[in-house]
Amino acid sequence: MTELINKFRAALKARGIPAAFITDPADIRYLSGFTGSTAYILITGENAVFFTDGRYTVQAAEEVCGDMERVIVSRYADVFAEQGEKYSKILLQSGCPLGIASIIRSAGAQIEADVEETLKTMRMVKDAGEIELIKAQYALAAKAFLKSLESFKTGLSERDWAAALEYNIKTGGADGVSFETIVASGVRGAMPHGTASSKRIGPDEPVIIDFGSRQGYTSDYTRMVYGGSDGEVLRVINIVREAVLKSIDAVRPGVVCRDIDGIARDHISSRGFGEYFNHSLGHGVGLDVHELPVLNSSGGVRLEEGMIFTVEPGIYLPGRFGVRLEDTVLVTADGAEVISRGLDNYVYPPYGL
Amino acid sequence: MTELINKFRAALKARGIPAAFITDPADIRYLSGFTGSTAYILITGENAVFFTDGRYTVQAAEEVCGDMERVIVSRYADVFAEQGEKYSKILLQSGCPLGIASIIRSAGAQIEADVEETLKTMRMVKDAGEIELIKAQYALAAKAFLKSLESFKTGLSERDWAAALEYNIKTGGADGVSFETIVASGVRGAMPHGTASSKRIGPDEPVIIDFGSRQGYTSDYTRMVYGGSDGEVLRVINIVREAVLKSIDAVRPGVVCRDIDGIARDHISSRGFGEYFNHSLGHGVGLDVHELPVLNSSGGVRLEEGMIFTVEPGIYLPGRFGVRLEDTVLVTADGAEVISRGLDNYVYPPYGL
Repeated sequence: MTELINKFRAALKARGIPAAFITDPADIRYLSGFTGSTAYILITGENAVFFTDGRYTVQAAEEVCGDMERVIVSRYADVFAEQGEKYSKILLQSGCPLGIASIIRSAGAQIEADVEETLKTMRMVKDAGEIELIKAQYALAAKAFLKSLESFKTGLSERDWAAALEYNIKTGGADGVSFETIVASGVRGAMPHGTASSKRIGPDEPVIIDFGSRQGYTSDYTRMVYGGSDGEVLRVINIVREAVLKSIDAVRPGVVCRDIDGIARDHISSRGFGEYFNHSLGHGVGLDVHELPVLNSSGGVRLEEGMIFTVEPGIYLPGRFGVRLEDTVLVTADGAEVISRGLDNYVYPPYGL
Repeated sequence: MTELINKFRAALKARGIPAAFITDPADIRYLSGFTGSTAYILITGENAVFFTDGRYTVQAAEEVCGDMERVIVSRYADVFAEQGEKYSKILLQSGCPLGIASIIRSAGAQIEADVEETLKTMRMVKDAGEIELIKAQYALAAKAFLKSLESFKTGLSERDWAAALEYNIKTGGADGVSFETIVASGVRGAMPHGTASSKRIGPDEPVIIDFGSRQGYTSDYTRMVYGGSDGEVLRVINIVREAVLKSIDAVRPGVVCRDIDGIARDHISSRGFGEYFNHSLGHGVGLDVHELPVLNSSGGVRLEEGMIFTVEPGIYLPGRFGVRLEDTVLVTADGAEVISRGLDNYVYPPYGL
């Protein structure tokens, strides 16, 4: 982690700012190795100081990388004020709570919001160790999903099926899910983020299931379960599937994110469903399940080898049904490796679509 | 929810600020009824406007209270800038991300951090409907825990047992857990927030289990599982149990939070373990599992009827074991009602302690 700290320091130095105060838990884990939920890091040209409270004394001693001085505090507000007194100017993250920024400023420091998202930008490109950990999560989640299909049946509630999947994820070795599992059947499928409800899954209803695991790093899949033969449902599934494949086909270093988004959007529009694809195409996956880069119509990031992101177009027909399919790709030297092939069908039971 | 909006408006007016921009998801749910994860609310003297994106069109139409104008946006940054142009001064929450505050300020508005935490302070006192929903979560979580005891055995991993408990919580009707379940056995119990690991639970190890459910409102329990007869373990459990009971005994309207914290701390110190109780005594429970009031040595909130909070002292002996017990109380007109009596023992199997 010395290397990461030095890279961040160089960015800080280039901007002529003497200190940065890191508040985002995933960034803190990235820089320090600490897996607890409350901590802060101060980085200056010379020092890296890790602050946490008494609940984490033992854990911090075990986890935090040796490059950092560890300080156990009793009141975080005192830490914020202390930095504000000590430094003329402090770089804060865009996600830093305004309350913390206000304390630092009141203590005397100028504050600057890190609109360039230095750490989150560093995190976009994964190293070999990170890629391995992410792939392990995709393998784990795929296995848990296939196992959960054994208990899937008409009449089961969305929530009970989600519970079975989440149980498999956890007993499969993950700390937990990367976000609350979405199981949206029938008309509920038209709500792209409808989580899982007490609704029972009806016969031959199309079901969207969007789920993932987390053990430090995360995974994120969306698949359909559909046992029916409605021509319109199958047609929409196929259009979404084509949008996924066309987008992935265009992934390689140098391509700009909005162009990948545009390929899926154009395809869906060309089939007459443009207005029903009302969200971004995808997002980076790493320590956070939603991280940079963003793949939408304004996403300006140029792809680089080592980036990992989702491709997840959808079509949502209010009052009828919805379809979303999601793969995840790793940008390679000359193209893309699909790392969500642990589930090599888009629809279960498989249609050979 | 009209009443809540008007109460908030009155606070805004009293401070002479024309608009507030609400960014906290639980506060947004509190004011609007919306259960999705991304939305914002603007409140002025005359208007209440709810902003979300295309993913939530259907859900917002179903859930958001009729008092609010609903706006579906494609770029949130445009919404932030628009408010900054429109109003001379905007009240922002302490948790508002600095990046949002910066956009609003750059667009021309003065910003003020709501250090008084107006909405979170309003949320401290629960109405009858909220109390019922919270009690329902405590009943659900208790049932799930008792059921999970059936699968508890020596040699089971902490994580697998947590998975069984979480499965019971979800199939019991909750959306999910209110935080990642903590199962900390033996020496891991000395890490007060050590979650659940792959460590197998050894024979006669004391196990801390800290868990809760969430279906809109939340619950939060900590119990011990201990089948051994080590005198020191039993002694420490008993000291912590006495600290819980003494603290609860002092709860009534008018008492200040730090005094409740002090009772537990003094008791544990008087038994020689003061330095091993290294966290706050408790926290409010509601839409968030950690909310106001804070019960620690500086907690200045005066208790009022309708407040709900945890009482959870602990003793953590590094390299040996840890003990934490947690009840939750509702402040009544003249005392406290313990709402965590769904688990009426502190230790399982029960010791009659």
